[in-house]
Amino acid sequence: MKKVKKRSAKKGMPPGTLVHVGGKAAGNTTVRLFTYDPVSFTEETLTDLDLYVDQPEGARRWLDMDGLDTERILHQIGQRFDLHPLLLEDVLNTDHRPKVEEYQETLFVVAKMLRLDPETEVIQVEQICFVLRQDIVISFQEHPGDVLDPVRERIRLGTGRLRRAGADYLLYALLDVIVDNYFLIVERLGERIEQLERKVMLKPGNVDLFTIQELRSQLIAVSRHITPMRELAGRLNILPSDLIDRSTRRYMNDLQDHTVYIAETIATFREMLANLENSYHAMVNLRSGQVIKLLTIISTIFIPLTFIVGIYGMNFDHMPWLHSPFGFYGVVGFMLALCLGMLFWFRHKRWL
Amino acid sequence: MKKVKKRSAKKGMPPGTLVHVGGKAAGNTTVRLFTYDPVSFTEETLTDLDLYVDQPEGARRWLDMDGLDTERILHQIGQRFDLHPLLLEDVLNTDHRPKVEEYQETLFVVAKMLRLDPETEVIQVEQICFVLRQDIVISFQEHPGDVLDPVRERIRLGTGRLRRAGADYLLYALLDVIVDNYFLIVERLGERIEQLERKVMLKPGNVDLFTIQELRSQLIAVSRHITPMRELAGRLNILPSDLIDRSTRRYMNDLQDHTVYIAETIATFREMLANLENSYHAMVNLRSGQVIKLLTIISTIFIPLTFIVGIYGMNFDHMPWLHSPFGFYGVVGFMLALCLGMLFWFRHKRWL
Amino acid sequence: MKKVKKRSAKKGMPPGTLVHVGGKAAGNTTVRLFTYDPVSFTEETLTDLDLYVDQPEGARRWLDMDGLDTERILHQIGQRFDLHPLLLEDVLNTDHRPKVEEYQETLFVVAKMLRLDPETEVIQVEQICFVLRQDIVISFQEHPGDVLDPVRERIRLGTGRLRRAGADYLLYALLDVIVDNYFLIVERLGERIEQLERKVMLKPGNVDLFTIQELRSQLIAVSRHITPMRELAGRLNILPSDLIDRSTRRYMNDLQDHTVYIAETIATFREMLANLENSYHAMVNLRSGQVIKLLTIISTIFIPLTFIVGIYGMNFDHMPWLHSPFGFYGVVGFMLALCLGMLFWFRHKRWL
Amino acid sequence: MKKVKKRSAKKGMPPGTLVHVGGKAAGNTTVRLFTYDPVSFTEETLTDLDLYVDQPEGARRWLDMDGLDTERILHQIGQRFDLHPLLLEDVLNTDHRPKVEEYQETLFVVAKMLRLDPETEVIQVEQICFVLRQDIVISFQEHPGDVLDPVRERIRLGTGRLRRAGADYLLYALLDVIVDNYFLIVERLGERIEQLERKVMLKPGNVDLFTIQELRSQLIAVSRHITPMRELAGRLNILPSDLIDRSTRRYMNDLQDHTVYIAETIATFREMLANLENSYHAMVNLRSGQVIKLLTIISTIFIPLTFIVGIYGMNFDHMPWLHSPFGFYGVVGFMLALCLGMLFWFRHKRWL
Amino acid sequence: MKKVKKRSAKKGMPPGTLVHVGGKAAGNTTVRLFTYDPVSFTEETLTDLDLYVDQPEGARRWLDMDGLDTERILHQIGQRFDLHPLLLEDVLNTDHRPKVEEYQETLFVVAKMLRLDPETEVIQVEQICFVLRQDIVISFQEHPGDVLDPVRERIRLGTGRLRRAGADYLLYALLDVIVDNYFLIVERLGERIEQLERKVMLKPGNVDLFTIQELRSQLIAVSRHITPMRELAGRLNILPSDLIDRSTRRYMNDLQDHTVYIAETIATFREMLANLENSYHAMVNLRSGQVIKLLTIISTIFIPLTFIVGIYGMNFDHMPWLHSPFGFYGVVGFMLALCLGMLFWFRHKRWL
Repeated sequence: MKKVKKRSAKKGMPPGTLVHVGGKAAGNTTVRLFTYDPVSFTEETLTDLDLYVDQPEGARRWLDMDGLDTERILHQIGQRFDLHPLLLEDVLNTDHRPKVEEYQETLFVVAKMLRLDPETEVIQVEQICFVLRQDIVISFQEHPGDVLDPVRERIRLGTGRLRRAGADYLLYALLDVIVDNYFLIVERLGERIEQLERKVMLKPGNVDLFTIQELRSQLIAVSRHITPMRELAGRLNILPSDLIDRSTRRYMNDLQDHTVYIAETIATFREMLANLENSYHAMVNLRSGQVIKLLTIISTIFIPLTFIVGIYGMNFDHMPWLHSPFGFYGVVGFMLALCLGMLFWFRHKRWL
Repeated sequence: MKKVKKRSAKKGMPPGTLVHVGGKAAGNTTVRLFTYDPVSFTEETLTDLDLYVDQPEGARRWLDMDGLDTERILHQIGQRFDLHPLLLEDVLNTDHRPKVEEYQETLFVVAKMLRLDPETEVIQVEQICFVLRQDIVISFQEHPGDVLDPVRERIRLGTGRLRRAGADYLLYALLDVIVDNYFLIVERLGERIEQLERKVMLKPGNVDLFTIQELRSQLIAVSRHITPMRELAGRLNILPSDLIDRSTRRYMNDLQDHTVYIAETIATFREMLANLENSYHAMVNLRSGQVIKLLTIISTIFIPLTFIVGIYGMNFDHMPWLHSPFGFYGVVGFMLALCLGMLFWFRHKRWL
Repeated sequence: MKKVKKRSAKKGMPPGTLVHVGGKAAGNTTVRLFTYDPVSFTEETLTDLDLYVDQPEGARRWLDMDGLDTERILHQIGQRFDLHPLLLEDVLNTDHRPKVEEYQETLFVVAKMLRLDPETEVIQVEQICFVLRQDIVISFQEHPGDVLDPVRERIRLGTGRLRRAGADYLLYALLDVIVDNYFLIVERLGERIEQLERKVMLKPGNVDLFTIQELRSQLIAVSRHITPMRELAGRLNILPSDLIDRSTRRYMNDLQDHTVYIAETIATFREMLANLENSYHAMVNLRSGQVIKLLTIISTIFIPLTFIVGIYGMNFDHMPWLHSPFGFYGVVGFMLALCLGMLFWFRHKRWL
Repeated sequence: MKKVKKRSAKKGMPPGTLVHVGGKAAGNTTVRLFTYDPVSFTEETLTDLDLYVDQPEGARRWLDMDGLDTERILHQIGQRFDLHPLLLEDVLNTDHRPKVEEYQETLFVVAKMLRLDPETEVIQVEQICFVLRQDIVISFQEHPGDVLDPVRERIRLGTGRLRRAGADYLLYALLDVIVDNYFLIVERLGERIEQLERKVMLKPGNVDLFTIQELRSQLIAVSRHITPMRELAGRLNILPSDLIDRSTRRYMNDLQDHTVYIAETIATFREMLANLENSYHAMVNLRSGQVIKLLTIISTIFIPLTFIVGIYGMNFDHMPWLHSPFGFYGVVGFMLALCLGMLFWFRHKRWL
Repeated sequence: MKKVKKRSAKKGMPPGTLVHVGGKAAGNTTVRLFTYDPVSFTEETLTDLDLYVDQPEGARRWLDMDGLDTERILHQIGQRFDLHPLLLEDVLNTDHRPKVEEYQETLFVVAKMLRLDPETEVIQVEQICFVLRQDIVISFQEHPGDVLDPVRERIRLGTGRLRRAGADYLLYALLDVIVDNYFLIVERLGERIEQLERKVMLKPGNVDLFTIQELRSQLIAVSRHITPMRELAGRLNILPSDLIDRSTRRYMNDLQDHTVYIAETIATFREMLANLENSYHAMVNLRSGQVIKLLTIISTIFIPLTFIVGIYGMNFDHMPWLHSPFGFYGVVGFMLALCLGMLFWFRHKRWL
């Protein structure tokens, strides 16, 4: 939400101006460069793009940039790789909608990383941009710390297809690990919804409405990002670009399947929450009805009785039965009979 | 639901790693091999794929694998039939969305079997995968026990077209029996909804809301699987693959009709439940209104009367009528008149 | 609903087995044969298909079969007209979704007849199947009694285009008369909704909720069948089949218009019902609010007064004004003033 | 609504029979004939179509028929202009869905005129049909009185393009004036919704629910007709017919824009009404909560006090403080303290 | 809303009549003319179009007209640039739906400017029309004051691509700045929704429902305009017109992305509001339940006690314990025990 606000700062500036629209300055920028081929890999940290040497033949590279504040480096990257000004602007404007754009010999992908803070259970959103060229992927993100470490490990250890496949497969691997994190969040929400459901099974109506509201808030937050991610995966799948190899398309298809699956799961969860909420309201109504019923029973029994004892508390000189030795017991007996009659009637009405 | 959780265990692993993502180990794996042609059939249980002999000319086969824990056998199958690594991975990952995928000369189908536990009325979900080749169907499932016995019987007895038709028809027969089980579940839910409706007809409002909630939960659970099954049937119908014969396509079309019908039935059931729920809430409101009305009537009648008798209970020395011999009867008469007047007014207001 | 249950009996049987999935046996089967051309017509009742003689040149025929229990006759028809086994199976399985299917030189149509029982206002559903060949229509229905008599009359009397047109026009006429019956039901529901609306106009909130629920149930029941009927009419309209003549297509188009109109009418009716239901709930809330207001007014006035008279009913030896000759009148006057003050305050608050 | 009922009278009649399905007989039929070219115009009233003389070269005509009861004239028109029987049937059946149909060299348009009765604020619906030929438009309506007078005036006065353009432009002008009347109704509803909104702004919750219900009823009524009118305008726009000139298509496009705009306006109004309704319910709940709060405060304060005074009204011989000269004042003081304590507590709870 | 009303004034006039359909006269009309090329620019204010000199070769122009009341000038513009009558009519009719229309060598765009009044938080809507020719953009607006100043500044200062690019880029820049203002409004609404959400986090349920209603009103108002703006941007993107350069299309695409993003944000906000509203209602129910519970507890405890003390206030001559010295203490003790018993029972029921 915070980022939406910042956009106003940019209102009316000419498109293409490089102004960082995003959160507060995230310290200094780190640029890591992975160079790998099926048999070897190197990992460097660059402080200046002038240190960037040409790519060895047959190798793939991942230029992994963390932090967008050093605009100098961004400019250097823009010039070094001849990137379109609008592309660089989009990188800096960190509240974009996930999308794929084709530039000449370049594919530009904007995605959203979601992470669930394990303690506060708050969902953190960060934008990440990818530039895919023939043998290189450049990634841009705003804050240090991301969900991409498993991919870095796989480059280092050489497990799986990653080091043998092209840069397009690296892009897939990065997007896949991002989408996997969506799964984690949805799973966690699913667990909590299940807990609520089990509570209801054990003791119907035993739901905390504010937990439901909070879970729904989180589902709204995730589903907001999953729709454009699904479109993105779909577009990557059908894109008539030479940059994405035929063999990689099957994996992109898989990616799209995952986003569809997440979207359907979210839809199901929302229905489950709606169902739980109905349960809750039904229980609240039931209980409030019982309380009113009790009030009515007590009142209906005792208000007439109190009236009767009030009658015999009047100070008239001439009242019947007052002086009879059985008057008191007669009245008490009558009241008992009345009371029992009403109880019987309530039971007949199934209120008791 | 349980399976969703397990996926997190696989996060960040390279795609293609064979790790069984699913429920707890389901004991040992059974591999049955059916070989049949129009006039004969054999049924073997294989303990090792090395025992698998080449397929006789003109025969069709069903390799029916039950249990995914012996990865050795899965590897053997993968090598023997030259299956794509991603396909084998999908077989092991038992929380996939139903789908059809075409590989070279291979069709891969992921479906979900639903079974209603007859005692607990809980819906059990199990993933089943099919590999269709020219003259063979390979099926993979996680747990022993399935809904496919009717097809096995038809192979054994040779009834219907099954033994005369190709492997594509076997695939259809297997999917058909799976979809038939969806029907059974929806029918059972339909019966219970009808029972509820009949209850309402007899005694309006006599609905148990928690039964409605539970039925809706189950409809949500089924409808979650029916949408992808519908897509699956639709894709099988239009797939430009040589593996599915023209004559079988008509049956696939039928399959699609069934899934559409189930989906529409579920939609209708949900509307009926919503209608029933409205009925219930209306009844609860009506009853709670009646209770409050009773409370109001009793209070409105007796509170003023109690006030009047209170007046004559005051201990003032000088009060009118106290010493008159008709005072008491006058007051009682006045109270009776008041009471009757209010009853008349309530009847006029149609509260009684 | 009843028919859905029966399908379970067929689970696992090979597709193509002729088992009648439907209601209880409907007595014996009647087969009527209408042969007509622009100038003449004959009407026979066949007991055996062996009695079926070849069709005269230039004549059209309607083989009108009522009752599906005599499977012998169905088999004879199947052989005589060389019908696909799956088609015959669909005829017997009377809980199909309306659909159109093309077989070689044959068009197969499954439709649903709806009738409103004039006394119980219950909607009865019956499946009817049509087979269209070059110069013949064969119709299959389960129970005697249908809505097709107007078409039979038109054949007998030779009114309209019917006897002059081909078999495709007969099919249209039959479907048209079925869709006309949908209109009747929707009209009847519309009348009842209008009655409810008029009631509300006269005396807002004067609605019976259970009538609303019942009307909605019936709308759900009709709309369940109208969607597939609309698809059916749409498909007949665009079907690239030689069996349906160009001049008849305009009529088929009309049929589709009717189904669209019915669907829109149902949607409008449902909105009207929702609006009426809102009215009802608003009224219930209003009334329940008035009841509570009365309770509050009575309580607020009399509870303090009762407290005051209670004070002077205490038996203390030393209390002020008890012995004054004006004490009683003073207290009564004070209570009167209090009562008037509160009434004034309630009027100020617009509660009275 | 009334017209829907009449359709049942036609059930089972052969399509093409000329029976007037509509409201009660609308007196006699008027046929007016406008003949015009850029420089001149004549206006005749025909009592018989035999009086119809051939169209002068280069002139355009509008045959404006009012009232459908004289079937003789309709037959004459049918024969004179060689109209398709189904077209004439559609003219007489006045509960058709708006549509466009192409016949040979003829375009047939069915539309709905809506008028708001200025006094009763009731929406009146009337069907109007148009036949477009090369140089003539024939219009059929059921009741005298319509919304087309502005077009008649423009023909008479020769303002605008009308007399210069072809018959297709006349059709556009007629449809345009009809759609303009939709605008008027929607505007009037908009005004009333705005009034309600302003009321809410001034005094939140000050809404009359039954006005909301009535406005929604009217929106439902209009929106029912606007969807098919939108389709109609869309089809006129893309129709591959020579009858509609290229230059007129731009106007047809405009017509479609208007219908889309009306539909969106209706959707917005419905959302506004839903919002207002929420406001209303919130206010009712708020007030009913306040009433119950008052009841609770009064009861909570006085019920314990009444109990205390009741204690000292008991007739025991031996009770403490009864004979003390300060007993009464002590008890009154205690009750005062209790009362103040509770008031303080209510204020603490923010109930006061 | 006000503008919708005015359209009725135009009902029945021939299309193409130049009548200003809009708000009250906005004083005099200003016409500013910007002429620029990459290196220079001039800015003139024209009082008469006769002062308009031919465009210098290679320069681009923006004719910026403010106020639509001087129809003379509008006519002059129409003649000078040979604009279609329908186009000019659309300019004057200020309640059009946003749209793009192609005329010969002319592109006509109708858009809506939204501004949030910073003090009253009311959304103001104004229509703006653009005419794009080869090297000129003409803009028409009704009221002085707009959101386009940033673009004027960029022309004056020569920042960005604006002065180097063609007239199509100017059109894009103008639309972009309009859409940016939508962002501002949505951001402001987002801030207020967030504030409400934070309130709920801190003190659940303490929300002002009427703020929710008002925010929803504003979201409805914005979303009403965003749908046609999205269509407009989409059409500009795919328009097969030579007027929009290939290089500008990428920017138009960006514009469409923004509108989609705004639409999704609005949808999310509406869901958040619905969630908040649920929270609010749940809280109101909870509180009202607590109030009723308190009433019930007080009544249930004291009504029976008051009855008991009433008994001993009766004036019978013969009542037990009245004369016993421990009678009073016995009764008080009994009442205390009863009271404690009920408190214990309430605690057991978790009402306390």
